[in-house]
Amino acid sequence: MIRRIVRDEATKEPLYRQVAHSIEQQIGRGVLRVGDKVPSVRAFRRHHRVSMSTALQAYFWLERNGYIEPRPRSGFYVRVPFKELIREPKYQGHEAVPTTVGTATIIHEVVQMAAHPAMIPFGAAFPGPGVLAAELLNRSLRKVVNRIPLHSVTYDLPEASEAFRRQIARHSLSHGCNFSPEEIVTTCGALEALNLCLRAAAKPEDVVAIETPTYFGVLQAIQSLGMRAVEIPTHPRNGMCLDKLENALRKHDIKACVVMPNCQNPMGYVVPEGRKKAFVELTNRRGIPVIEDDVYGDLAFEGRSRTLKSYDQQGLVLLCSSFSKVLAPGLRIGWVHAGRFRDEVEKLKYVTTIASPTLAQLAVAGCMQTGGYERYLRKLRGIFSDRVQTASVAVAQYFPEGTRMTRPRGGYMLWIELPTQVDGFCVYREALQKNVSIMPGTIFSPSGRFRNHIRLSCNQPWSEKLHLAVQTLGQICRNQIGS
Amino acid sequence: MIRRIVRDEATKEPLYRQVAHSIEQQIGRGVLRVGDKVPSVRAFRRHHRVSMSTALQAYFWLERNGYIEPRPRSGFYVRVPFKELIREPKYQGHEAVPTTVGTATIIHEVVQMAAHPAMIPFGAAFPGPGVLAAELLNRSLRKVVNRIPLHSVTYDLPEASEAFRRQIARHSLSHGCNFSPEEIVTTCGALEALNLCLRAAAKPEDVVAIETPTYFGVLQAIQSLGMRAVEIPTHPRNGMCLDKLENALRKHDIKACVVMPNCQNPMGYVVPEGRKKAFVELTNRRGIPVIEDDVYGDLAFEGRSRTLKSYDQQGLVLLCSSFSKVLAPGLRIGWVHAGRFRDEVEKLKYVTTIASPTLAQLAVAGCMQTGGYERYLRKLRGIFSDRVQTASVAVAQYFPEGTRMTRPRGGYMLWIELPTQVDGFCVYREALQKNVSIMPGTIFSPSGRFRNHIRLSCNQPWSEKLHLAVQTLGQICRNQIGS
Repeated sequence: MIRRIVRDEATKEPLYRQVAHSIEQQIGRGVLRVGDKVPSVRAFRRHHRVSMSTALQAYFWLERNGYIEPRPRSGFYVRVPFKELIREPKYQGHEAVPTTVGTATIIHEVVQMAAHPAMIPFGAAFPGPGVLAAELLNRSLRKVVNRIPLHSVTYDLPEASEAFRRQIARHSLSHGCNFSPEEIVTTCGALEALNLCLRAAAKPEDVVAIETPTYFGVLQAIQSLGMRAVEIPTHPRNGMCLDKLENALRKHDIKACVVMPNCQNPMGYVVPEGRKKAFVELTNRRGIPVIEDDVYGDLAFEGRSRTLKSYDQQGLVLLCSSFSKVLAPGLRIGWVHAGRFRDEVEKLKYVTTIASPTLAQLAVAGCMQTGGYERYLRKLRGIFSDRVQTASVAVAQYFPEGTRMTRPRGGYMLWIELPTQVDGFCVYREALQKNVSIMPGTIFSPSGRFRNHIRLSCNQPWSEKLHLAVQTLGQICRNQIGS
Repeated sequence: MIRRIVRDEATKEPLYRQVAHSIEQQIGRGVLRVGDKVPSVRAFRRHHRVSMSTALQAYFWLERNGYIEPRPRSGFYVRVPFKELIREPKYQGHEAVPTTVGTATIIHEVVQMAAHPAMIPFGAAFPGPGVLAAELLNRSLRKVVNRIPLHSVTYDLPEASEAFRRQIARHSLSHGCNFSPEEIVTTCGALEALNLCLRAAAKPEDVVAIETPTYFGVLQAIQSLGMRAVEIPTHPRNGMCLDKLENALRKHDIKACVVMPNCQNPMGYVVPEGRKKAFVELTNRRGIPVIEDDVYGDLAFEGRSRTLKSYDQQGLVLLCSSFSKVLAPGLRIGWVHAGRFRDEVEKLKYVTTIASPTLAQLAVAGCMQTGGYERYLRKLRGIFSDRVQTASVAVAQYFPEGTRMTRPRGGYMLWIELPTQVDGFCVYREALQKNVSIMPGTIFSPSGRFRNHIRLSCNQPWSEKLHLAVQTLGQICRNQIGS
């Protein structure tokens, strides 16, 4: 009987749990599938004739246990229940020691293979958005070309740049900030922003604190600038460990910190708000510049959450982002709010690439101005959440026992911890032979950690081909442990 | 009597000189004006009933004396006769000593003022091409957006990048090279290319040989990378002095050389071919990497001339260019053929900005593919030649006695040597008060040379306003010497 819950006073179960059970059952029976929308709380409440607060409690319980996830301004959707997923990767505490970064050659090869058109691209962090983004973007591009024919005749047309930076400022409310357009410096993508920030905050030989695992682009930038990295142990759900960071700050002369608190690459976590606040308090107190990489921030499945920048009291957080992960990487449009480093960053920008593409700035500003961008983001979050969960289920199905896996709260990466006997780099090599590209875990650490880890990028529309590729990967791992 | 030259056997003047005189007279009387097309050699010959060789001799004489200038595939055009222009700047030989570059703050201010919309922009190196370029470009952009809707969904779509690099390779024949597309690395403008080449060829503290005066962007790049510069005396018509360079190479541990042999900024010279060859022989022999900046190369008034790269036997010339000066700076599209430094440059590109704007690459490739680009270039050369000459005449008219000025063979810069009592920086400051932006000479040298020099950028359509601005500048200079 689904329509009317029998209010069984004899059981110990509270009422909200009993009504939640009805949805749990529907999911279990396959009536509701992953990605389906569940009834609104209002409808659910009417249906079961319970109070609003009971209905809300039921939904919270379902969410806590991974049955459903909220998508802002769109309602709740069915997701893969946590209990059906394999465990999360272990947190690895370790001593934080400065390292000279030297993995660039391997990274270069891995990245090239990931982009190879013959590969099934679990390696690439692109192309994600695709057709949906192209439609939004091309509409805006056509408008710009027709209305502002002289769009590109100067370096970064002041009006162009202003239109773009005004939209960034407007959007900054969504992550808890309130920027002025003139505080923003536009860049050729977020990696340029990150390079400029590193150069503004530190010198060659200086030590920079990073998450581990961390996006390998950060490692390459640090290496190419002749700096050193110190890996701070990082929790797969909570981000960089504050105690370990504080210890490292005491022990080493750390000049800057690079972190990705929202939808981290590769672990997909969103650092809980309290920890974000504590992190900024700590680094503010010690006067350490924090370079915050927010390229996936708009892709948090449950909607935007705050940036570290929003807690910054001292202009010490340098917030970098771009439209490469959300709209189109070929645009080469990023930006940075560099706090007290603004002037230095702007000067460095001027002497390295002078300006950023004008047309792309105008087109992106056009997308953001109309509200089309917000609608698009809401769709995109749902799409990526579905893809990540579908891939998670396949991994759980085919990978050997002992495999662990993140439960990303945004973005489109899965970070997989394989049984210790399995070498991620060998998996990477063997997978290439079978035309599947993935990323080996070692490239996410300057000291060769994560030997038994791999990263899957789940930004492709799910297909039989991808399903088989996960099966292939699972088999490669099984072969390595002889199971 | 113009129709039929009296063949005066009594005068000592050879026949070609007598027929040339007819054109000289027409120019003198204002029948032919600066920028007008003169009759074709063929028509001229028929008209005067002389042999082809006499007609050719006459035209060569007119060209040598600055009455006319050839524009490839378009014929000869009237220019300002050399005798009506003031003298060229003096060549200044000096000791070449490595200098730490430290002028960036002033440069930053000057550049911002140059771009200020309220100014009459003799300072800015943009916007030049304008409407003509916008038409060509927007036609191409619309095609790309319609035909390749997914143009920007990856980092630098391999096909996109290939289409662009194929056109660069094709165009390389025009300057004496024969590139393969895969040898080219695309960049976000030529300044990025230049930065990457500097980083590939030298390290912080290393010494780099430069022209003097040199484009200040080179100085800023050298400074921001912590390198040092050594200024090699540079002739206003022949470029960097080879003897002085050889001496400097012997004396100092020079790691690279940055030069602009075609349409140099600010002096506008095109280094004679023999000297280009000798320059490359010298640097090849000594194993010195040469970073060749060719951003104005397509704008040589007499058509393309060879790049240093075309003489390079050892892969030691790193040729950088872009479409910022020729098409539109807002595109942020440049490229580099880095010879034996290719892989290193590509890796550095990857770790600083990953890729270059895809749409702009496709649009530029579209422009170049159809031949529209070559036609456009021919028009543009004529336009800039006229503007530079018109400005030259105005300078000769209004500036104080003792002023000297370059006779640019391409680009749109005029380099003016003022009487020694005049301070270019004071002229710059005073001119700003009157809403005229220029560039003071000192920012073109890391050691504060060219105190009595200024640069005028003549890329605007000539107007009464510009004419008055030159008059104002002349008056400011006169005031300084109390004349």
